[in-house]
Amino acid sequence: MKTTLQTLKGFRDFLGPEAARRNWMIEQIRSVFERYGLEPLETPSLEYQELLLGKYGAEAEKLIYRFDDNGGRQVAMRYDQTVPMARVIAQYQNELSNPYKRYQIQPVWRAEKPQKGRYREFYQCDADIIGSTSVLADAEILSLYYAIYRQLGVSSICLKVNDRMQLLDAIKAQNIADSQVMSVIQTIDKLDKLTMAQVITQLEQKGIEADSAETLLGSLQESKPSKQLSKIIESAIALGVPESAIVFDPTLARGLDYYTGLIFEGIIPEYPVGSVGGGGRYDNLIKDLSGVNAPAVGFGLGFDRTYEALEKLSLFPALPVGPRVVVCYFEETKKDALLLTTKLRSSGVATAPYMGESLKMDKQLKYADKIGAGWAVILGEDELQAQVALVKNLKARSQKSVKLEELPAHFNNLIF
Amino acid sequence: MKTTLQTLKGFRDFLGPEAARRNWMIEQIRSVFERYGLEPLETPSLEYQELLLGKYGAEAEKLIYRFDDNGGRQVAMRYDQTVPMARVIAQYQNELSNPYKRYQIQPVWRAEKPQKGRYREFYQCDADIIGSTSVLADAEILSLYYAIYRQLGVSSICLKVNDRMQLLDAIKAQNIADSQVMSVIQTIDKLDKLTMAQVITQLEQKGIEADSAETLLGSLQESKPSKQLSKIIESAIALGVPESAIVFDPTLARGLDYYTGLIFEGIIPEYPVGSVGGGGRYDNLIKDLSGVNAPAVGFGLGFDRTYEALEKLSLFPALPVGPRVVVCYFEETKKDALLLTTKLRSSGVATAPYMGESLKMDKQLKYADKIGAGWAVILGEDELQAQVALVKNLKARSQKSVKLEELPAHFNNLIF
Repeated sequence: MKTTLQTLKGFRDFLGPEAARRNWMIEQIRSVFERYGLEPLETPSLEYQELLLGKYGAEAEKLIYRFDDNGGRQVAMRYDQTVPMARVIAQYQNELSNPYKRYQIQPVWRAEKPQKGRYREFYQCDADIIGSTSVLADAEILSLYYAIYRQLGVSSICLKVNDRMQLLDAIKAQNIADSQVMSVIQTIDKLDKLTMAQVITQLEQKGIEADSAETLLGSLQESKPSKQLSKIIESAIALGVPESAIVFDPTLARGLDYYTGLIFEGIIPEYPVGSVGGGGRYDNLIKDLSGVNAPAVGFGLGFDRTYEALEKLSLFPALPVGPRVVVCYFEETKKDALLLTTKLRSSGVATAPYMGESLKMDKQLKYADKIGAGWAVILGEDELQAQVALVKNLKARSQKSVKLEELPAHFNNLIF
Repeated sequence: MKTTLQTLKGFRDFLGPEAARRNWMIEQIRSVFERYGLEPLETPSLEYQELLLGKYGAEAEKLIYRFDDNGGRQVAMRYDQTVPMARVIAQYQNELSNPYKRYQIQPVWRAEKPQKGRYREFYQCDADIIGSTSVLADAEILSLYYAIYRQLGVSSICLKVNDRMQLLDAIKAQNIADSQVMSVIQTIDKLDKLTMAQVITQLEQKGIEADSAETLLGSLQESKPSKQLSKIIESAIALGVPESAIVFDPTLARGLDYYTGLIFEGIIPEYPVGSVGGGGRYDNLIKDLSGVNAPAVGFGLGFDRTYEALEKLSLFPALPVGPRVVVCYFEETKKDALLLTTKLRSSGVATAPYMGESLKMDKQLKYADKIGAGWAVILGEDELQAQVALVKNLKARSQKSVKLEELPAHFNNLIF
């Protein structure tokens, strides 16, 4: 097995502590989705290639994991959650609510060049409201995104918002050819990383005259939110987003070509690595993908980036893995120790009985410490007689005698 | 998109209600794992083929999804969770607790012929204690398995147990060749589906003399639990498994060849489709797989079978998806309706504002009913003036006026 004692590049094992934090994150996010009335969706890891091909653009398409299965079917691994969602919308039209509000948290696979923070297997976490053109849907999406970060403890989360239509109008006002518009948008999108002068140079390289480029950027910077965007912001505020957390950024562009209205990005000021996700309104995409007319607004939350931000900002709660309490015993008290273990578990305390070979008490305590338990409960014959147990705090190296009947409450008050 | 508006055979979409029940099941199971002090593990969906090949037997190996990735690496999709766990144990030896108690709940892929209840993508749910030969580890595994079904509401769950060593000894006592032993075990394993006479016939077809076959089955049926198994059962009872839920079945065989001690299966009497999972002790397998000496005991819980059993026995709680409450309003009260929505959400009530086009109240109520909400809250100008809202129970078609400040408590008392 020597050569295979490794994971593939870009793929990760998640051992206990990290898996626990990821699970915690998913639970928190899911609780907000459900409070907002979104329903879960899961789609298969494999789809017919035909469904995925021609949907992501030529460059992205190269990154799809695809192969012929044993039956000769051309299959592909999930590359994103939007195309499978479009299939679901077309396939179950009559079963789904309208509007259909769904969230989806599943892994996707992309054969990207692995690098720091970029993986070949990673979770996507998407939310969309499909079937409504109401500004309330846009406002709900902003509010939901904000609420998730608040739930995760990121009180500084800030939403940069813009109206893609307003941006398009400003670009078209400079007589820039339709065929160039998306390219210009992608350059403007770099304003958070490049200086104004650098962006103008890049626009010039794309054949835009310096005058037009300057006028365009100048006009953008002076512009006010469109009437539509103002309505969305107003409703988002009523839906719980503080006014100070919404920043109109008329140069926010977003790279993808399918947005048709609101666009936004989440920013964590103390974690300045660019956005931690974003989204917007895309009223034509689902029709293009599936043939079903379904206006939509939604977001993708950057799962790994958000995880890293929570780590960096120390926002994960203590999530110990393994038993909190190890019950130690002697041959004579073993059965009672197991009964006590069961009693502690029933009251919700993560507990395990000692299961090493030697019953020497120092071995038992070392075992408890080594597997990361916070406490050892010693049940000797004298203790059993007196219906108490010796509770040792393994970190503080303190100990006290606690009545057996009070042990569950003792730990529940201590730990939870 | 016409031809691709379908999932691959053996692959499933999980829409809201089903996804919610699956999530609930996973949460329940995870809560028990954690109470027992097991830690989570996640491994990648893709591994080097080399890791998987030669591990499952020739027939099973044909079912592995494998292919060359874009970089020419020979990769394979997760086929089970045991082989990746063996890799993890070898790869992170110094980081893992000893004993290492882990659970893993992830999808696996097998190119089986799809049929009722058999899928090509399905969840495995495994728990193992690695690094201990103590009977307590075996007892913990039995107790854990039992506790999970109790947590899921299956009070009738019953554990059939046997000692693989005792079974081997009984077979060898009939002078059956070593090379035939596993084949005999696999035939005996059919005793829950076939009659005694049928099993004897099959054994005869395998070249076992009728006398030997009869003597073997007769001796098995008269046998008592081995000393080792008795100790395990005794500890499992102290760890909370009722004596009546453990049934010694001396003909229980389990098909896999790697068991070295305890073997067991979970049975739900009211759902008689065979076992809903099982496991046992396997002290040599991890060494065979990874070169690391690690005695182990564990189980695999049949996720889909258990799901089907819970459905059949009506054990799923009501798990409504989508908003429970829809807030309805008029143009003048819209902003206050959104504020009220936020207030209800903050108190944990799954709520959404109406977002259809027409503000006619009958349209709004129809909308609320259609998306499956149980209640509509109407906030008109008169109500707002009086700081109340009209609460409509959409099922019972009843309504009452509730003070705005009491609304969160009203729903929390009602729903949760």
